[in-house]
Amino acid sequence: MTHAEPYLLTPGPLTTAVSTKAAMQRDWGSWDADFRAMTAQLRRMLLDIAGDVHGDYDCVPLQGSGSYCVEAMLGSFVPRDGHALVLANGAYGKRIATTLRYLGRRHTVHDTGDYLPPRAADVERLLLAQRDITHVVVVHCETSSGILNPLEEIAAVTARHGRRLLIDSMSAFGAVPLDVRTLPCDAFVSSANKCIEGVPGFGFVIAKQEVLRAAKGVSHSLALDVHDQWETMNRTGQWRFTPPTHAVAAFIEALRLHALEGGQPGRLARYTRNRDVLVAGMRALGFEPLLTEQWRSPIIVTFFSPADPAFDFTRFYERMKAQGFIIYPGKLTDVESFRIGCIGALDADVMRGVVAACADALKALGVRHAAPAAADAGARAALDTSLADSSGTPPATSLAA
Amino acid sequence: MTHAEPYLLTPGPLTTAVSTKAAMQRDWGSWDADFRAMTAQLRRMLLDIAGDVHGDYDCVPLQGSGSYCVEAMLGSFVPRDGHALVLANGAYGKRIATTLRYLGRRHTVHDTGDYLPPRAADVERLLLAQRDITHVVVVHCETSSGILNPLEEIAAVTARHGRRLLIDSMSAFGAVPLDVRTLPCDAFVSSANKCIEGVPGFGFVIAKQEVLRAAKGVSHSLALDVHDQWETMNRTGQWRFTPPTHAVAAFIEALRLHALEGGQPGRLARYTRNRDVLVAGMRALGFEPLLTEQWRSPIIVTFFSPADPAFDFTRFYERMKAQGFIIYPGKLTDVESFRIGCIGALDADVMRGVVAACADALKALGVRHAAPAAADAGARAALDTSLADSSGTPPATSLAA
Ligand SMILES: Cc1ncc(COP(=O)(O)O)c(C=O)c1O
Ligand SMILES: Cc1ncc(COP(=O)(O)O)c(C=O)c1O
Repeated sequence: MTHAEPYLLTPGPLTTAVSTKAAMQRDWGSWDADFRAMTAQLRRMLLDIAGDVHGDYDCVPLQGSGSYCVEAMLGSFVPRDGHALVLANGAYGKRIATTLRYLGRRHTVHDTGDYLPPRAADVERLLLAQRDITHVVVVHCETSSGILNPLEEIAAVTARHGRRLLIDSMSAFGAVPLDVRTLPCDAFVSSANKCIEGVPGFGFVIAKQEVLRAAKGVSHSLALDVHDQWETMNRTGQWRFTPPTHAVAAFIEALRLHALEGGQPGRLARYTRNRDVLVAGMRALGFEPLLTEQWRSPIIVTFFSPADPAFDFTRFYERMKAQGFIIYPGKLTDVESFRIGCIGALDADVMRGVVAACADALKALGVRHAAPAAADAGARAALDTSLADSSGTPPATSLAA
Repeated sequence: MTHAEPYLLTPGPLTTAVSTKAAMQRDWGSWDADFRAMTAQLRRMLLDIAGDVHGDYDCVPLQGSGSYCVEAMLGSFVPRDGHALVLANGAYGKRIATTLRYLGRRHTVHDTGDYLPPRAADVERLLLAQRDITHVVVVHCETSSGILNPLEEIAAVTARHGRRLLIDSMSAFGAVPLDVRTLPCDAFVSSANKCIEGVPGFGFVIAKQEVLRAAKGVSHSLALDVHDQWETMNRTGQWRFTPPTHAVAAFIEALRLHALEGGQPGRLARYTRNRDVLVAGMRALGFEPLLTEQWRSPIIVTFFSPADPAFDFTRFYERMKAQGFIIYPGKLTDVESFRIGCIGALDADVMRGVVAACADALKALGVRHAAPAAADAGARAALDTSLADSSGTPPATSLAA
């Protein structure tokens, strides 16, 4: 670590391995057989990570950022007369609803706020009440708070009621288990610069072959037509349009490192340790995580901002940056918070450095103790109690065309 | 040049400078002020190259490949009740029509085939005949043949008839003049990996501020909504979604090298020399360019495949690659051809190396003379004559919803 190149404690773009960046020191002809082989390799390796041993699924890389892949999945797989139930508990769930509004697809939003996951019982109630819902759309790890949504129970209830599941696993796939052998879903998306630890430039859709076939002619967009990209890629081995060749080369190296670390379980173990070292260290300074332990992901942790009026996020951020750590502001609507990511080429030593830098920054700002406002902590405690009752707060449900 | 890393004689991705690739050896936080400054810098430098001294235009970078920017421009600027006249003479013009079909925008295609540019007189006739045409869409350099379309006369006739002009200047901007002070247009697009010589990962839309303002709520797509990207970028300094940070860093270095070479005129001079050395050398081997000199761009040159039955493109390609040069097959429907690009970090010496490698490859294949089939050359000669008559072949015009 040098001050010239800080660690990124952000959930993508993130700090990548030196060898991943070094793989970009060469120009590749996108039409050439060598590059086609790289494309084939990354598709195969991603399907392996997804557990697709039977060849029921296929992998379609797509130029652009992760949101492009989400829109491509929705526009290609939700038919024009479909009706999507969106399970939202943060910025990315809300973006799914916004996207469906652009596409003119009917959708119902089940919003559980910033602290709580969607639960099977609520989804069941909604699916029984609205028989014409065709798809359930869920965010795996809602990165705006770091909440890890209970994918398995959502998938099970969706399948039991004969509906189709689409997953935004942007910040989870590659570290959190997502195995298509046990998790019934039509498709999911992720991107190069999350848990596989590549550089940004493309994402990928992993979908059932039958779903890909059925998507012909559905998309609202040429660029985001997953069927067309898939069909062309399988026929020619090429991306339809110019691929981000350097990002692809970096991704191949990132996939090699991922396998070397023990694949998804190995990566999960490191990220979990990163999170645990971080949370323990921050707690010792008085910081409190937003989420209860049950829903806290190993991807990113949101902390309440300290109640002490001496705390100023911009100054805190700059002080952290001066010590070589880039952190993130919160993406939450209700409470003052900030986020620290656990993913990327980081280990427990780096996380200890982060905690030490936080201690230094608090001192510089004159913050004596980093405890959150009683109201913030209280709001969460009330939720904890309601969760223990297993009743939950009645979540907002809204219908849109 | 080594055999491990061949030169790319392809019109993007292309061979980039060593320092451009070296700029990707660092991870950037996309939310951080340092990266926001890089985004602001690239927008300003691109507007400078476009000649926007009065601040009438703005530059909106967009994640994805060039085709994404074309679709974003069409979807954001052609209103839902608009009618676009598409001037097509190759694959990229046809893709514009395909995109408009996806978007459900009414369009008329004026197709002049693979050899001929659209002319002002024909456009005028069409604009007079169809009073409800709102936009003319033209490809600056149609990269599938390398034809340089007469942008100035198309812009003039479009403006004279009070219609709006949208330009795909993907492979031309930065080398071929495109100055908004003298060329009336609503918007144009290009991408990072063409004449600015960056790596692929994003493109950009340069549009009149008033056109950007009017685009609110028009786009069919969240990801490709130019207005939304523009508004967010101007408000926050950030890209709406994760930007390809490494490609942006490389682009900043590429822009520095572009300025160092003397900007657009300096780049045009080098590319023109590359082309002239290439064409002279290839002619000496018997090869014949597809296009007459008048329309031949300094971007990429298409050559007829030799008539000699010993010529086999795949073997020719492999032999060129073994000598360190990646070339492109033709993208034309009618005749057998291949293409050699003149853009990227290449100079006249490299082009002489290309010609020498072609000579070697012909020898290896047992091709005695690289002259094209008489019919191919004849077809072009006939067009030359008709052009001299300034009558032209009656081009195909078709209407689509
Ligand atoms: C869960 C989730 N969905 C979607 C996105 C959007 O991805 P991008 O910023 O690459 O468009 C992100 C980005 O962090 C994410 O974490
Ligand atoms: C004139 C023109 N338009 C559009 C494109 C498409 O760009 P991309 O392949 O980046 O999508 C190209 C690519 O070469 C081009 O030359």
